[in-house]
Amino acid sequence: FEEPTSSVAAQILATVSILFVIVSMVVLCASTLPEWRAAENRSVEEQSRYTADSVREPSGIIEAICIGWFTAECIVRFIVSKNKCEFVKRPLNIIDLLAITPYYISVLMTVFTGENSQLQRAGVTLRVLRMMRIFWVIKLARHFIGLQTLGLTLKRCYREMVMLLVFICVAMAIFSALSQLLENGLDLGTKNKDFASIPAACWWVIISMTTVGYGDMCPITIPGRILGGICVVSGIVLLALPITFIYHSFVQCYHELKFRSARYSRSLSAEFLN
Amino acid sequence: FEEPTSSVAAQILATVSILFVIVSMVVLCASTLPEWRAAENRSVEEQSRYTADSVREPSGIIEAICIGWFTAECIVRFIVSKNKCEFVKRPLNIIDLLAITPYYISVLMTVFTGENSQLQRAGVTLRVLRMMRIFWVIKLARHFIGLQTLGLTLKRCYREMVMLLVFICVAMAIFSALSQLLENGLDLGTKNKDFASIPAACWWVIISMTTVGYGDMCPITIPGRILGGICVVSGIVLLALPITFIYHSFVQCYHELKFRSARYSRSLSAEFLN
Amino acid sequence: FEEPTSSVAAQILATVSILFVIVSMVVLCASTLPEWRAAENRSVEEQSRYTADSVREPSGIIEAICIGWFTAECIVRFIVSKNKCEFVKRPLNIIDLLAITPYYISVLMTVFTGENSQLQRAGVTLRVLRMMRIFWVIKLARHFIGLQTLGLTLKRCYREMVMLLVFICVAMAIFSALSQLLENGLDLGTKNKDFASIPAACWWVIISMTTVGYGDMCPITIPGRILGGICVVSGIVLLALPITFIYHSFVQCYHELKFRSARYSRSLSAEFLN
Amino acid sequence: FEEPTSSVAAQILATVSILFVIVSMVVLCASTLPEWRAAENRSVEEQSRYTADSVREPSGIIEAICIGWFTAECIVRFIVSKNKCEFVKRPLNIIDLLAITPYYISVLMTVFTGENSQLQRAGVTLRVLRMMRIFWVIKLARHFIGLQTLGLTLKRCYREMVMLLVFICVAMAIFSALSQLLENGLDLGTKNKDFASIPAACWWVIISMTTVGYGDMCPITIPGRILGGICVVSGIVLLALPITFIYHSFVQCYHELKFRSARYSRSLSAEFLN
Repeated sequence: FEEPTSSVAAQILATVSILFVIVSMVVLCASTLPEWRAAENRSVEEQSRYTADSVREPSGIIEAICIGWFTAECIVRFIVSKNKCEFVKRPLNIIDLLAITPYYISVLMTVFTGENSQLQRAGVTLRVLRMMRIFWVIKLARHFIGLQTLGLTLKRCYREMVMLLVFICVAMAIFSALSQLLENGLDLGTKNKDFASIPAACWWVIISMTTVGYGDMCPITIPGRILGGICVVSGIVLLALPITFIYHSFVQCYHELKFRSARYSRSLSAEFLN
Repeated sequence: FEEPTSSVAAQILATVSILFVIVSMVVLCASTLPEWRAAENRSVEEQSRYTADSVREPSGIIEAICIGWFTAECIVRFIVSKNKCEFVKRPLNIIDLLAITPYYISVLMTVFTGENSQLQRAGVTLRVLRMMRIFWVIKLARHFIGLQTLGLTLKRCYREMVMLLVFICVAMAIFSALSQLLENGLDLGTKNKDFASIPAACWWVIISMTTVGYGDMCPITIPGRILGGICVVSGIVLLALPITFIYHSFVQCYHELKFRSARYSRSLSAEFLN
Repeated sequence: FEEPTSSVAAQILATVSILFVIVSMVVLCASTLPEWRAAENRSVEEQSRYTADSVREPSGIIEAICIGWFTAECIVRFIVSKNKCEFVKRPLNIIDLLAITPYYISVLMTVFTGENSQLQRAGVTLRVLRMMRIFWVIKLARHFIGLQTLGLTLKRCYREMVMLLVFICVAMAIFSALSQLLENGLDLGTKNKDFASIPAACWWVIISMTTVGYGDMCPITIPGRILGGICVVSGIVLLALPITFIYHSFVQCYHELKFRSARYSRSLSAEFLN
Repeated sequence: FEEPTSSVAAQILATVSILFVIVSMVVLCASTLPEWRAAENRSVEEQSRYTADSVREPSGIIEAICIGWFTAECIVRFIVSKNKCEFVKRPLNIIDLLAITPYYISVLMTVFTGENSQLQRAGVTLRVLRMMRIFWVIKLARHFIGLQTLGLTLKRCYREMVMLLVFICVAMAIFSALSQLLENGLDLGTKNKDFASIPAACWWVIISMTTVGYGDMCPITIPGRILGGICVVSGIVLLALPITFIYHSFVQCYHELKFRSARYSRSLSAEFLN
C-alpha cells in the first residue's frame, strides 16, 4: 500500500493526493493576494459578522477538505502498516504529522480565543501556523522518484553538506570582515554606508559569492572592488567543489532508486500473472 | 531528399532555406523598431490610403516571399515523401505547418475584415498570429545537427525535465511562502511591500535560485536575508542535479547523431562512386 | 597530539578550540554593529573615563580570553612536537603565529601611546591589526577535513590557479579596453559616464564575466551591448575551463585525505586494542 | 628559438617580453584615467605648445620603447626562422603583425596631418588604432601554456562553438519575440517601455539566459515573468550543453600540450648533457 506502483487503487489514491496538495498550495498562494484578501474580508463581513472563524471563509472550506483528506490518508496508512513502530520513525510520516498538526492547533486557538482582541494578539502565531501548510508539498516526495532521490542524497551527503556550509562560513567571515574594513573602516575617500557592519557585509558576500548580484550593495572604493573580484572568483570555485560530490552521490542514488522501483514493479506484475 | 547532405541540389536548397529563415527573422525584428514602424506608417499612408492590407507594406512583401518559399518547400517535401502518413506525424513537419498556417489565417482575417474599426478590435489576435512566425526559426533544426541533438535530448530526458520542474516548483512553493512570511507577514520592524503576496515572492525566488538577481526585489529584514542565502545556495544545488542527467544524455545523443550522419554520407559517397 | 582523532582529550581540546574560534568571530562581527558600538562607547565612558584600553570594553575581555587560549594551545603544541624545526615550517602553524601576533602588537601600541591624540592617529593601523583576527578562522582547518582538502588542492593546483588568473587578466584587458572604446571613446550618440576609463570598465568586465551583474554599470549603446553579450558568454566558457582541473584535483585530494585519516584512526584503535 | 624553454637567453627574452606587454597594458589603462589625461594635457601644453605628436607625451615615450622592442623581436624571429613561408602563416605571428602595424599607421597619420583641425577629425580613427594595442596581450600566448591550450581548443571546437552560437541565437529569437509580445505588444494593463522592440528585448534575453541579470530591464507583467523564469532555466540548460564538449576538448588539449612540452624540454636537456 505504501508503494504508489502497487495497484490501480493505489495509483488513483496517489493522483488524488497530488491533486489535493496542488489545490491546497494554490489556495494558500491565492489567499495572500491583496485582491483576494480584500474580496474575502468583504464577503466575511457581509455573511457572518459575529464570527471570525477561518472555516467560514471561502478558502477555509477548501482547506478543511484538504486537511480532512490528509488526516484520513495518514490514519489509514497507519492502520494498514504492519510494523507500527517503524512506521512512526519514517521521516516522511513525521513530516506528514508536522504538516497536519499546525492546522488543528490554529483551529483550536481560534475556537478558544473567541474575541477579536485576543485573536489580534495571536495573529502572528496563527499566520506562522498557517504557513506551515507549505510543507505539505514535501508529501509529494511519496509520489516522485526525483524528490526521493533528493532526500536520499541529502541523507548520504551529510558530510559534504557540512563541508559546503563550512566553506561558505569561512569565506563569508574572511571576505565580510575585509570588505567592511576596506569600504568603511579605513578612510579611503568615500565611506560606503552599506558596509557599516560585518553582518551587513555578510549579505553582500553571500550574494556575490553565489554570483546572484542584486546590486543593492556594491563596493565603491578601488581596493574594495579588487576584493570583490577575488571574492566572486573564489566563491565560484569554493561553491562548485563540494557540489561535485553531491552530483556524483545524486546520480548514484537515482540509479539505485530507479533500479529498485523497476525491480519492485516487475515482481508485482509477476505476482499478478501467477 | 530529406537529408541535407544527400546531393548538391539539396545543399543549395538548404542554404536558401536558412537564408530565408534569417531574412524573415531580421524583418520581424526590424518591424518592431519604433523608427521602422514610424517610417512604414508614413509610406503606407502616402502610397495607399484606401487599404490596410499588410502585404502592401515594405516588410509585408519580403514576408510574402518567405511564406511562399516555405509553403512550396513544404508541399514539395510532402509530394516527394514515400510514406505520407509517417510524414505528417514527424514533429518537424508539424512545426512547419504550425509556423505557416498563422500567416494565412492573419491574411484571411485582414481580407474579411475590410474596415479599420474591426481590424482594430482584432489587432491583438493579429499581432499574436504574426509573432508565431518566430517559430520558423525551429525549421533550422533540419539543417543543424546541434538543434537535432537538442530535440532528441528533450524527447529522451522527458523524465529528467519533469524532475527539474518538480524540484523548481517545490523549492519555489516553500521559499516563496517563507520569504513572504518573514518579509511581510510578520511585523519585523520594516514591512517589505515587494513581498506582498506569495506569487510576487515566487518571482524573487526563481530569480534568486537561478542566480540571476535582477535586484528589483530584495529581502530587507535579517531573517529574510538568511532565508535568501539558504534559498540561493539550495537553488544552485537543486538546479544543477537534474541538469547533470541532461548533460550525459545530450553527449550520448550528439555522438549517436554524428555517427549516423557520418555513416549516411559515407554510404552516399559510396553510391556515387559505384 | 597534532591529530584531532588521536584521543578523547584531544577531541575535547579540538571542540573547545572550535568554540573559541566561533565565539571570537561572533564578538568581532558584533563589535562592528552600530548599536553595539554605541552601547560600548557609553559603558566605557561611564565606567572608566581615564583609559582607552580596549581590554576594559566588554568585548575586549572575551577577546583576551580567546587570545590567551590560542597562545597557550600554540605553546603546548610547540613543546609537545618532536621536531621543532619542522613544526615552525608547517603552514598552519605560521598562520597561527600570524593570527596571534597582531593582537599583542595592538595591545603594545595602546599601552605605549597612552594619550588619545596619538591613538587617533594610529587608529587605522589598530583597526587593521584587529581585523587580522579574522584569520583565526583558518585555524578551523586543523579540525575540518574539507578545509584541509582545500588547502592541499590550492597547493597542488598552483599551475591551474595561475592559468585561471592569466585567463581572467587577458580577457579583462581586452574586454575592458574595447568596452571603454565603444561606450565612451567613440561618439556613438550617448556617452556612458560609467565607462570613463579602462580601470572603471575592468570592474564591469569582472562582474559580467562571472555572471554576477550588479547592474551599477551597464552598456547603453548597441555595439557596447553586443560586446557585453560576447563578454558574458566567453566569461562563462573561460572561467569554467581551468575550474574543471581544480575539481578533479579536489576530488582526488579529498579521497587521499579521507583514506589517510581512516587508516590513521584504524591504526590508532588497533593500538588501543593491543 | 621559438620555444621559451630552449635556452637561458630565450628565457630572459621571454621574461622581458612579458614585462613589456604588462608595462604597455598598464600605460594604456592609465592613459584613459581622467586624472592622468588632465595632468598630461597640462604638461604637453607647458612643454611643447607647437606640436601635438603623441611621442612627446610621457606615456608616449614608454609606448615607443615597447613598440620598438616588439618590432625588433618580430624581425629577429623572422630572420632566425628556417621556413619563412610557414612563419608568416602561423596565427601568433599574424597577430604580432596586426598588433604592431596600427601604431605605425597612427604615427604616420599624426605626422602627415600636422594641423590640429585635421587631427580632430581623424580623432576617432586614431583612438581606435591606439586601442588595437590591447591585442598585444595575446602575445602572452607564446609564453603561457594555458593560453595556447585555449587557442588549440578554440580551433578544434569550431563545430561546438557554432552549436553554442546557434543555440543562443535561436533561443534569443524566440524569447525576445515572445517577451516583446507579452510585455509590450499585448495590452496587459501595464506597457513596459523597456521592451519596446525585439532588439531591445534581445539584450534582456542574453543577460537573463546567462544569469547575469543587471536589472536595468525587468519583466513586469505576470505572463512576462513566467516567460522570464522559463527563459532563465532553459538558458542555463542550453548554455551548459555545448560547453561540456568544450570542457572535454580543453582537458585533452591541455594534456597533449603539457606532454609535448615536457618531452621537448627533456630532449633539450638530453642534448645539453651530451
